[in-house]
Amino acid sequence: MTSAKKKAKKAAPDSAPLSELLRLPLGKVSLADLDPGATPGYPGKGKDDAPKLTADLGPQLSDLQEMLFAAGRTDPETAPRVLVVLQGMDTSGKGGVIRHAIGMVDPQGIDLTSFKAPTPEERRHNYLWRIRKALPTAGKIGIFDRSQYEDVLVVRVENLVGEEVWSKRYEEINKFEAGLAANGTRIIKCMLNVSFAEQKARLAQRLEDPTKYWKYNPADVDARDKWPAYMKAYEAALEKCNTEAAPWYVIPADRKWYRNWAVAELLRETLAGMGLNWPPAEFDIAVEKRRVAAS
Amino acid sequence: MTSAKKKAKKAAPDSAPLSELLRLPLGKVSLADLDPGATPGYPGKGKDDAPKLTADLGPQLSDLQEMLFAAGRTDPETAPRVLVVLQGMDTSGKGGVIRHAIGMVDPQGIDLTSFKAPTPEERRHNYLWRIRKALPTAGKIGIFDRSQYEDVLVVRVENLVGEEVWSKRYEEINKFEAGLAANGTRIIKCMLNVSFAEQKARLAQRLEDPTKYWKYNPADVDARDKWPAYMKAYEAALEKCNTEAAPWYVIPADRKWYRNWAVAELLRETLAGMGLNWPPAEFDIAVEKRRVAAS
Repeated sequence: MTSAKKKAKKAAPDSAPLSELLRLPLGKVSLADLDPGATPGYPGKGKDDAPKLTADLGPQLSDLQEMLFAAGRTDPETAPRVLVVLQGMDTSGKGGVIRHAIGMVDPQGIDLTSFKAPTPEERRHNYLWRIRKALPTAGKIGIFDRSQYEDVLVVRVENLVGEEVWSKRYEEINKFEAGLAANGTRIIKCMLNVSFAEQKARLAQRLEDPTKYWKYNPADVDARDKWPAYMKAYEAALEKCNTEAAPWYVIPADRKWYRNWAVAELLRETLAGMGLNWPPAEFDIAVEKRRVAAS
Repeated sequence: MTSAKKKAKKAAPDSAPLSELLRLPLGKVSLADLDPGATPGYPGKGKDDAPKLTADLGPQLSDLQEMLFAAGRTDPETAPRVLVVLQGMDTSGKGGVIRHAIGMVDPQGIDLTSFKAPTPEERRHNYLWRIRKALPTAGKIGIFDRSQYEDVLVVRVENLVGEEVWSKRYEEINKFEAGLAANGTRIIKCMLNVSFAEQKARLAQRLEDPTKYWKYNPADVDARDKWPAYMKAYEAALEKCNTEAAPWYVIPADRKWYRNWAVAELLRETLAGMGLNWPPAEFDIAVEKRRVAAS
């Protein structure tokens, strides 16, 4: 057990909300101290009960999402919205989380955007331009598969812009996210923390399974050479952009079943904490009952 | 049993693919002859086994969708795509189908668009402009919650443009859809056929349940007064735009459990009939295994 996990256990027992257990503490971040194989807060015994425990979150997730959606319909200007940011190294499971955790939610309530290398049009704009365009509307749950953080991760590691440019972005991102939060967006930033060894095992698996060849990209192996640089860039992003308005959660991601359960539970807790209610009728119920009966 | 259902039974026994059973025959369409309470092709006993029978489609749907998605990644220009068009009167269950049938598919594979009354910007363009913008990209399953057909349905019934305008649209839509099909889009147009009586029951239910008030719109009762005009407009759209390239399926929609199962099964059959395969490796597998092992 790493010292960070010991500290987390001390500060918050397993009965604490998962959002407390996985919340990255403010201050210096050392990814080496965060165990990618941990399973904090997991209520089951292990892998075998994970499908059921995850599926059991479905009905409550579904109700809460529909309540959020209803608020958006009733009040399209000021209803709250949620933004889940998913970041992590290749094979950390951003896609798996979307498939298995986000997939439990009604697709009508989800605004999903997968950010790839920027297009020529996106390059002509500030890096936040495409992010703004993809923000969830009232009542929706936005999912960012990669995000503005790529502009201080791959962009930093690959020297796509100079340090004088990327070094200012942490504060820009903080301001941007604070603005979103002030306007009613609950932001949940998840770093899927996979280990160097587990990434190797997953890449090797893809080469053993013809149904997974399409997921394999030879460039992923090149990126492994830069693992320390990526970890440094992640630590900077986690440390400098860990705010009350937009907190970071580090999700241990070596166990897929834990990772999927954890993101689903984090989303459920967030929605449950928003004080959502079914909107009241905006019409005279008795009158409408008579109208329907007569129709 | 209506004469139309009798005919369907004769032409195609229940063991036939659902796509044959629900395929609207070419020629004159009379919605009065199509039973909204029917359950053609349903393999179970009734409502009770529907959740399991529908869920059982999940794994195959999921695999097929991933294969389609993989094709889109490998060949982003020419890979096939699928477009599911959902049309139906209020309460017919477009939303329910998306939640319960489409919701079984990985959200990463879905391009969902809900078409509302056109925005000022959309009004400045041809009615197909917003449709083109929402078409699924390679490897994706596009879902249209309402569609280009609104421009020959509500637009016709409410006289939003003159007959000289809407009457030309059937042929325009046929050409448009034929072009999509020629470029690799499999089009599945579903008319969710709910009865006048069942719509009334569903509207009344919404007024009995505070979690459903937000779904109730007093204008839906006004639209019931125009039911015959809507049926006539639907019959015209079904009849004039029922092509080999973009066939119409009429889904009996008085039983929600049948409707959800039927759309899921129709999508499964369509995907299964596309001859999808996992893309071959585009790299030297042995070389990559060595690279991963050494990384």
